[in-house]
Amino acid sequence: MTVKAYGAHAGDQALVSMDITRREPGAHDVLIDIAFCGVCHSDLHTVRAEWAGTQFPCVPGHEIVGRISAVGAHVSSHKVGDLVGVGCIVNSCKHCADCGDGLENYCDGMVGTYNGATEEKPGWTLGGYSQQIVVHERYVLRVRHPEQDLAAVAPLLCAGITTYSPLRHWNVGPGKKVGVVGIGGLGHMGIKLARAMGAHVVAFTTSESKRADARALGANEVVVSRNADEMAAHVQSLDFILDTVAAPHDLDAFLVLLKRDGTMTLVGAPATPHPSPNVFNQIMKRRAIAGSMIGGIPETQEMLDFCAEYGIVADIELIRAEEINVAYERMLKGDVKYRFVIDNATLSK
Amino acid sequence: MTVKAYGAHAGDQALVSMDITRREPGAHDVLIDIAFCGVCHSDLHTVRAEWAGTQFPCVPGHEIVGRISAVGAHVSSHKVGDLVGVGCIVNSCKHCADCGDGLENYCDGMVGTYNGATEEKPGWTLGGYSQQIVVHERYVLRVRHPEQDLAAVAPLLCAGITTYSPLRHWNVGPGKKVGVVGIGGLGHMGIKLARAMGAHVVAFTTSESKRADARALGANEVVVSRNADEMAAHVQSLDFILDTVAAPHDLDAFLVLLKRDGTMTLVGAPATPHPSPNVFNQIMKRRAIAGSMIGGIPETQEMLDFCAEYGIVADIELIRAEEINVAYERMLKGDVKYRFVIDNATLSK
Repeated sequence: MTVKAYGAHAGDQALVSMDITRREPGAHDVLIDIAFCGVCHSDLHTVRAEWAGTQFPCVPGHEIVGRISAVGAHVSSHKVGDLVGVGCIVNSCKHCADCGDGLENYCDGMVGTYNGATEEKPGWTLGGYSQQIVVHERYVLRVRHPEQDLAAVAPLLCAGITTYSPLRHWNVGPGKKVGVVGIGGLGHMGIKLARAMGAHVVAFTTSESKRADARALGANEVVVSRNADEMAAHVQSLDFILDTVAAPHDLDAFLVLLKRDGTMTLVGAPATPHPSPNVFNQIMKRRAIAGSMIGGIPETQEMLDFCAEYGIVADIELIRAEEINVAYERMLKGDVKYRFVIDNATLSK
Repeated sequence: MTVKAYGAHAGDQALVSMDITRREPGAHDVLIDIAFCGVCHSDLHTVRAEWAGTQFPCVPGHEIVGRISAVGAHVSSHKVGDLVGVGCIVNSCKHCADCGDGLENYCDGMVGTYNGATEEKPGWTLGGYSQQIVVHERYVLRVRHPEQDLAAVAPLLCAGITTYSPLRHWNVGPGKKVGVVGIGGLGHMGIKLARAMGAHVVAFTTSESKRADARALGANEVVVSRNADEMAAHVQSLDFILDTVAAPHDLDAFLVLLKRDGTMTLVGAPATPHPSPNVFNQIMKRRAIAGSMIGGIPETQEMLDFCAEYGIVADIELIRAEEINVAYERMLKGDVKYRFVIDNATLSK
């Protein structure tokens, strides 16, 4: 079937309206009428070919929410009419240790929601800047939030799980003091989630102007990281740091804030390396620097259910599909609080 | 009391024989007649003032074994005649969380066995290149090895615990595949210990010439890390890597050998930073880079007991005290298998 989408024909061209083809739903597939799709930095990196390997035409979008309009004959976990979400993953090998552990995000055969290799035409996946998508039921998540929140639920499918997964993996909860570095699309979710998990949350920002915002998001304390005195007050006090900043920056300034055995986890990958951290800062207190990438499917469901229970959604600015190129420019300037979401109904206009 | 020692009067001078003063043993102190003292790279860095803060005269040595010749009135854990060891730590605050957890090595008030601040004259501690040492009983370890092994036990007090602690902390044991990078003073202990713990041990060396040696030390497999094909055979297969190399080197080459959730722990701190590792290699498989520094006192006792049970000692070359300057030059060239140990009886000659 043919559906309307927004995408680019080349890395140096603007996104434009285009028609794309979706497969007929197979026995285990779900057809979703997409209501909203969040706009992630990865969308921009990929569609502008800033990372290697972008195939064109490229239709980005992996923060998808909508309603099921058809299911295959053997679909057991979803039914027509359900509110659902699709995140960064639409397929994986289904038989490796990672898939067996519900960590499809670490499967070597993981297929991304866009620009992922697939046997269907055109040979790569096309994402959520589109009217409809067909996805294997395993990778479709139930949404339990009220329908009026649906647009603000969309960013949970990437920004939400990317921060939720490391917070859970490194046991953030009551009695723990947790730092969240960077207050953007990922960081604003990190603050909300860590606070809801019961931790004492310290937000770190380079912008004095974000101090009040970070508190409003739920931070117990806010540190402007350019202020040495404010930083010094937290030395050796944090159990865990979630670093959401993808731009190269000084990791040592944050490492020294960790207690003995603390971990700083990076969820952003800079285009050029961070300055190499000082090994002494790790050795002296057995500190670790780790990385984490989105999350597995069961964990994504757990995150959505957790957010529904705690009334957590993203802070968003809703846009029309044709505003996407302007939105990208604003996103590059950090001019969004904190996530753009496309109203996919505007694709048909 | 005055005892003979070997040390340096300045960073650019050779070590020479000198007389130093030891305090009278206090109520909780133990007086040890030092039989042997291992020679650690840290000794050289400190005595040559390659790290900041060396006080002169400097008497290095923190791989000490000997026999107790006197105990203070309130010493309960040791008695005259016991074979004992002293490692890198001779004091700590005794009341912080780290000390409470038996991790005196991470205590902010930890006092090193040499060049550590102390109220006694001359104001800093003097180490094991000496006839006798006086140490608080808390920091004195029991040696259960046969006495004829005593010289080869000495390096366990630093090289042994520095490798044992991270291997235990990161749960190395049966069913785990473990890499040990570098086959020197630390690495050769890492191979022996990891193998005794029941792990499958892969040794990594830059020297084709060390292949047979590494196997003799207990490695199940040996990889010459300059050989890309050999490295490729281990991609995503290791649960843990113990990196003992202090010289700056490419961490990414080893990071990619870790399984999902694997950790690479650095126990050497380079004088100039390692090339900054690629964050993608960490994010893609939730891998961590950590640091670890020696070990706590209870853990050091556990290590000594483990080594006595498994018959593990260091491979050493015994030297006379006056050979120390030559030994340093050979150590810098890697010309030692794998640890020099001073026969402290030669100090009186």
